[in-house]
Amino acid sequence: MENVKVIIWGLGAMGSGMAEMLLKKKGVEIVGVVGRGKKLGTSMYDYLSVERGDRPDVLIGAYDEVITEKAADVVLLCTDSFTKNAFEKIKFCLEKKINVISSAEEMAYPKAQEPELTKEMDRIAKENGVTVLGTGINPGLMMDLLVIALTGACEEVEHLTARRVNSLSPFGPAVMEEQGIGLTVEAFNKGVEEGTLAGHVGFAESVNMIADAIGWKLSDKVKQTMEPIVTSVHRKSPYAEVQPGDVAGCAMKGYGYVDGELKIEMDHPQQIEPELEGVHTGDYIIIKGTPNINMAINPEVPGGIGTIAMCVNMIPHVINARPGLKTMIDLPVPRAIMGDMRDLIER
Amino acid sequence: MENVKVIIWGLGAMGSGMAEMLLKKKGVEIVGVVGRGKKLGTSMYDYLSVERGDRPDVLIGAYDEVITEKAADVVLLCTDSFTKNAFEKIKFCLEKKINVISSAEEMAYPKAQEPELTKEMDRIAKENGVTVLGTGINPGLMMDLLVIALTGACEEVEHLTARRVNSLSPFGPAVMEEQGIGLTVEAFNKGVEEGTLAGHVGFAESVNMIADAIGWKLSDKVKQTMEPIVTSVHRKSPYAEVQPGDVAGCAMKGYGYVDGELKIEMDHPQQIEPELEGVHTGDYIIIKGTPNINMAINPEVPGGIGTIAMCVNMIPHVINARPGLKTMIDLPVPRAIMGDMRDLIER
Repeated sequence: MENVKVIIWGLGAMGSGMAEMLLKKKGVEIVGVVGRGKKLGTSMYDYLSVERGDRPDVLIGAYDEVITEKAADVVLLCTDSFTKNAFEKIKFCLEKKINVISSAEEMAYPKAQEPELTKEMDRIAKENGVTVLGTGINPGLMMDLLVIALTGACEEVEHLTARRVNSLSPFGPAVMEEQGIGLTVEAFNKGVEEGTLAGHVGFAESVNMIADAIGWKLSDKVKQTMEPIVTSVHRKSPYAEVQPGDVAGCAMKGYGYVDGELKIEMDHPQQIEPELEGVHTGDYIIIKGTPNINMAINPEVPGGIGTIAMCVNMIPHVINARPGLKTMIDLPVPRAIMGDMRDLIER
Repeated sequence: MENVKVIIWGLGAMGSGMAEMLLKKKGVEIVGVVGRGKKLGTSMYDYLSVERGDRPDVLIGAYDEVITEKAADVVLLCTDSFTKNAFEKIKFCLEKKINVISSAEEMAYPKAQEPELTKEMDRIAKENGVTVLGTGINPGLMMDLLVIALTGACEEVEHLTARRVNSLSPFGPAVMEEQGIGLTVEAFNKGVEEGTLAGHVGFAESVNMIADAIGWKLSDKVKQTMEPIVTSVHRKSPYAEVQPGDVAGCAMKGYGYVDGELKIEMDHPQQIEPELEGVHTGDYIIIKGTPNINMAINPEVPGGIGTIAMCVNMIPHVINARPGLKTMIDLPVPRAIMGDMRDLIER
């Protein structure tokens, strides 16, 4: 049987990580990589500093050269956070009859913010006999799918809290900027007011995914707040340095209401070097219901590796799925792939 | 749209609990109950001590009277622990073109112990256009599906441990007997030797489910050990009383090997009143891999409610599934049902 064939679109931290992960796996090969600017024409192996061995070379190319009809089983699209920005790229891949997995946060549950584009992607995918899925560590697993899976053990659910306390120290300059790390409190608050700080993208997606999965109808738009985490000590990480009194992190909260009552709470403080002020990182799920369930994962499941793994590990499920736009609640549970990926494909 | 129609076969603790849970849910009705002996001809509502309201009565009947062709969408079969004992009942339901959810522990992954009966059930289900699933809290979620779902965030997995430390205090006389509660150490060990103590049924199922899901090929049969938990204090629960020096619980361990190397460990000490000797109950998952993941749920997700909820909550997934024998790794994640069950059925 032929290897599973993958194209990676975007070689930032996520796309590069997925490429490196795939190169260690059996029964799968990278047949194309889409990049732009100076990367064009470079060998993927050189770019990643990975030994090519006896594998054929893969040159980084323009999207319309690399993505041709049925050129791969799946495209891993690692370019955007927002559905509206990813949409034209997804459409292009689907129309070439190739499945798509997107790491764009909003694509984890695109119906939440972009119902019209969601219908459009579903229609295009079905017309072309392929599937599109958005996933990642969060949204995609820690603050939504895992919450949902634990409610499977519940007769009744009254209230749900998902809390993710994580360290931003390993992340690069783009994340530092999105989260406002190193700003003064004044500059941070101005950024919030003017909408220039992205913070975490995904609460609307996680809350809507949970509500739809367990059959709660949200009565209000998902609300969210964003507060600076002000440090009282000097903090330094590879890509940031923060003085006492300035912003070492961004604390976001999200709220889902059913019949006007608060039923789903998201609590996601992200900062560099949290342990310097005694903050222990972790993922927490608190279900009030029958029974109550209190889950803790310490430390938190790391965001970078987690998103890379989720996108790669969902490849077989996406290839096997019926055509259309799918979300994590439509497909079997994610799982590591320690064997030959070809064994997981239903022919 | 018509209500989802359910038949419950077996009105022990699990079957009764499922009936009570279903009576609180929307868009679903119990259309038949199978019992035997003195229960026959009794009203289910009287038997459960639940108000009937304006619902039509349901009389407990013999299986061949209640289960007729397409008499329901699904039978919840709550009669056995072992596949070989449940097999004829499952076959009977499938041949009446009704989906089946079984709470028999071995049915959570029947291939592990009964590969021939598994093929047979799959064939019969497909011939009749219906689906059969085994599930419960454990096996079914805590020591297998949840482990698998968390590996979804992993690039590599080296070793897996699932630990479930639970209290047996709420359980009745049958469980006390199966687990050897109240025996002397000598009598317990004799029971282990002669195979008269069942202990926990499910390690072979959980280990095989995990291995198959992540692509590890087990090189040996799953091994298990059973040790008495000897109390040093007097312990008393509604259905058992144990003197110091006697057996207050049963500690089971299970081991899965890949290429002769221990890769999957199950650790499941069950006892009455664990807190009397400072034992805190909980569910624990420890993944050694990239990344490491350490999960704790305290206290443990209770076994009784958990199994009842899992069987009921999987009804829509089973009705929607393609025909055949399915396991928890084939279907979308379990979830609570807080809305109308009919909204979850794909027509």
